[in-house]
Order: sequence, then C-alpha cells, then structure tokens
Amino acid sequence: MRMTFVEKFRSSSERNRSLLCVGLDPEVEKLPRFLGADPESILRFNREMIEATSDLVCAYKMNLAFYAAYGVTGWRTLEETVSLVPSSIPTILDAKFGDTGNTSRMYATTAFETLGVDAVTVNPYMGSDAVLPFLEHDGKCAFVLCLNSNPGAADFQVRHLDGKPFYLRVAEKAVKWHRIGTCGLVVGATYPDRLRDIRATAPDLPFLIPGVGAQGGDLDVTLRDGRGPSQAPVIISTSRAVIYASSGADFAEAARRAAEGLRERMNSLL
Amino acid sequence: MRMTFVEKFRSSSERNRSLLCVGLDPEVEKLPRFLGADPESILRFNREMIEATSDLVCAYKMNLAFYAAYGVTGWRTLEETVSLVPSSIPTILDAKFGDTGNTSRMYATTAFETLGVDAVTVNPYMGSDAVLPFLEHDGKCAFVLCLNSNPGAADFQVRHLDGKPFYLRVAEKAVKWHRIGTCGLVVGATYPDRLRDIRATAPDLPFLIPGVGAQGGDLDVTLRDGRGPSQAPVIISTSRAVIYASSGADFAEAARRAAEGLRERMNSLL
Repeated sequence: MRMTFVEKFRSSSERNRSLLCVGLDPEVEKLPRFLGADPESILRFNREMIEATSDLVCAYKMNLAFYAAYGVTGWRTLEETVSLVPSSIPTILDAKFGDTGNTSRMYATTAFETLGVDAVTVNPYMGSDAVLPFLEHDGKCAFVLCLNSNPGAADFQVRHLDGKPFYLRVAEKAVKWHRIGTCGLVVGATYPDRLRDIRATAPDLPFLIPGVGAQGGDLDVTLRDGRGPSQAPVIISTSRAVIYASSGADFAEAARRAAEGLRERMNSLL
Repeated sequence: MRMTFVEKFRSSSERNRSLLCVGLDPEVEKLPRFLGADPESILRFNREMIEATSDLVCAYKMNLAFYAAYGVTGWRTLEETVSLVPSSIPTILDAKFGDTGNTSRMYATTAFETLGVDAVTVNPYMGSDAVLPFLEHDGKCAFVLCLNSNPGAADFQVRHLDGKPFYLRVAEKAVKWHRIGTCGLVVGATYPDRLRDIRATAPDLPFLIPGVGAQGGDLDVTLRDGRGPSQAPVIISTSRAVIYASSGADFAEAARRAAEGLRERMNSLL
C-alpha cells in the first residue's frame, strides 16, 4: 500500500532523527564549475545532494521556478529529480498553485500523479475552490501559504481581515479544509509571536517552516512554538545553507556536513 | 523596436475592432477526435484556432495548467503555441505566479524572455516583492488577481481588510505598483457593482476580465463599468465558448463564428 505524506514524514523523521527538509533549488550559475554549465548539470548536482543527505533529512522540497526557468529541459530535470528521491522520503513541490477549481484539479493531477510528489504548496487568495482539489487526493498534503517572511507580507498578510490578522483567518480556514484532506500551513520563521498564535489556531496541522539558514530565523523559538503541545508535524526547510555549502570539489561532503550540523542543532533544542 | 504590451493591445484591438481575448486552454479529451488523442494534437488544434481567429481578437491567453499537465511535451507545446501567435497580437500567460522576490524574478525571466509572452497573471497574496519583479520588465504587463468570480472569492477577497473590501485594497496597491511598470488587474465579470468600484479605485489600469461566455457574466454592464471614463485597456477573455464551439469537422469555422459573434455583441454595446 502506498504511504501517505504524513506516514512518510513520520517514518523518515524518526529513522533519520530529523526535522530538516532540504530545498533542491539549484541554479546553473551557482553550481560547482566542474559539473558543467548546462541545465543537465542540475540533475548531476541533485543526484549528489540526495546521495549526500538522504539519511539526514525528513523531506525534500523542489521549487518549480528553478526548473521552469530551463523550459523543456527543466521540466525533465524536475521529473528525474523527483524519481531520484528514495520513495520513503516525502517530496514537496513548492509551486504556490492558486487557481479556480477546474484548473487546480489539473495542477493537482500534474503534481500528485504525473510528477508523483507527496505534497504541494498552495496560495489561498482565491479561497476554497483553489485549495480543495489538492486535498481530494487521498494521502497527499497541501501546504497553504499562511504567513511569509518576505517584506511583502506587510502589504496584506499581517493586516486585519474582519478584525483579525489575515494570516489567522487563513489558519482558521485551513483547520476546516483539514477535515477534507491533509492541509498544512507555510509559516515563515521570522515572527515567533505570530507562529505561536498560528499554532494555537491550528494545533494539529503540519507546518512547513522555511527561513532557517541563509534566510535567518530563530531556531529554538521556531521549534518550540512551531511544534506546540500536540507535536504536529513540523518541517524546517532550508536550501542555500546546505546545497551551496561549498563550490569546490568537496561540495557534496560540505552539503552533508551542513545538513548534519543543522539537524544536530535542531535535535539539541528538542 | 519591440512593441510594449499596451501598444500591441491598442494596435490589435483597433485593427481587429475587438476586445475579445481567446483562451487557448485545450484538453486532449475535449478535442475533435480526428485530431488525435496525443498531446501533440493540442498544437495542431491551437494552430487551427489561431488561424481561424487572429483577425478577430485583441489578445490570446494561455493557462499554464493546461500545458503543465502534459509534462515535458506540454511545455514544448506551450513554447510552440506562443511562437505561432502573430507578433502583433499580445500573449498573456495565465500562471497566477506568486512567490518571493528571487523566485518571482526567475518566473518573470521564464515568462518574458524564455517563452516570450507579453503579459502574465500574478497572485498578490505575498505582496509587493511577489509582483514588482514582473513590472521591472520594461514594456511587459502583470495582471494582478483582484476579484475572481469563483465561489471561493467569498472566503477572503470580498471580506474587509482594515475596513475596506480586500479587493479594493489590492486595487489600491496595484495603482502604486503601476508607477513602476504596467500593472493590470484581473476582475471577474460576475459582480457589476464591484467592478465599478474597482475601476473607480484604479481608473487607468488595464483590466483582464474573464467570465464571459461559458462562465456567464453580464456583457453590457461589464463593458460599461470595466472601461470607465478613461477608456483604459479592457480585455474580455473567454475560452470554452470559442474553442469548443463544435467538436466536428467544422470546429475551426465554428470557433471563428463564435469569436465573431462575441466580438460583434461587444462592439454593438460600445
């Protein structure tokens, strides 16, 4: 029987003693020179990253933009990268999908069936019919954008929607959506107080927390407030701090050391 | 010199006496059987649609989901479809992009440089840094989702953000973003009163209005309130009502007749 996203997470997280998710978001210009400068070098790089870290992570995340940028070749690289990840480790497609029902249904099929990832990120702006088609795929997970750590979050997300912070309104909706299928939340790591409030609103939802490592973020507070009393799944995601740890011949070992360091730092705080 | 999105729109709209945008969003299962049932049949279908309607439209719109669903082949079909559109007619990639600054920058390059479209749709949830990278491409246009006609719009878009309908807050921001580059708005055709309020908030912004044809929408009110006194660009988009006008051997002529009918109905109301 096929494992659900949550089962895969629990199993890889226990086996690898890890809450670390590595973002496989490489750009050709930033890869070690000797790997080549063609889009195919991304696949070689991803293979090395996965081999170097697959016993240290709880998940891998791929941002669609980093593959779409290379057109047809990029799409093929994305498919092949997903297939390189051991089937016991969950994969998250970070595409921030957000469209009407019919179109979301197509994106869900593309992500979960064609590509075969275990989870996606979804933009809630268009409301329920943008989100539900993803939740209708049994055992998969849709992480809904709740509060981001970029400056633009000030434009709408932290303002009040009918008397309450907008990000809490999103969390409230997500709790309802979670009755239909596994609905998670994406919460930036840079606002500890807000993270606590979101966890209080959505005690049982999986959280995907980017913003650790290259993007900053206070790891111990994030872990404490992100997990909350119910020990719901928390996935701490980082990309550049691991995959670009070195651009020399030791790039894979350096990535492994960086991932190991982050994992140990997290475990020491738990 | 390369024409801007607005110049292309003005020129095709005048030349073809048209505000009609056709959505090239075909699904293999819905194509006339004799075209074949492989993803390549989409390209043959799109070529016929463009040849049948290119003297009747002001723009073409391609929804990314309908191409991404076919993986590598779909991506190639999208590239080839864009290249089949006469260069004097603007193309809109409906991908509802919405990500942080660096990632949005990659999506902008992909859309405007690699694919070579003239405009995109963008999701405003993550705020300014999700939108600005698209506006920094000179002469291109980013249509920001403002108010959609799907039921999910009730979840957030029509609620009050700091005391004013959220969709008007988006329109206010878009007016500011428009100082940096051509920022348009996507406004569903099913709420005439709200369309009027949005136009009053953003008198000079281009509007992309889906929801005519198969999706319903009151065309005369839409045209009057959507254009407003400043005669800002208004693009009325429809897909299924044109491209699936017939599934028989006459599918191309039927699409032409449907497009002609919609164009004449609009022109008679102007």
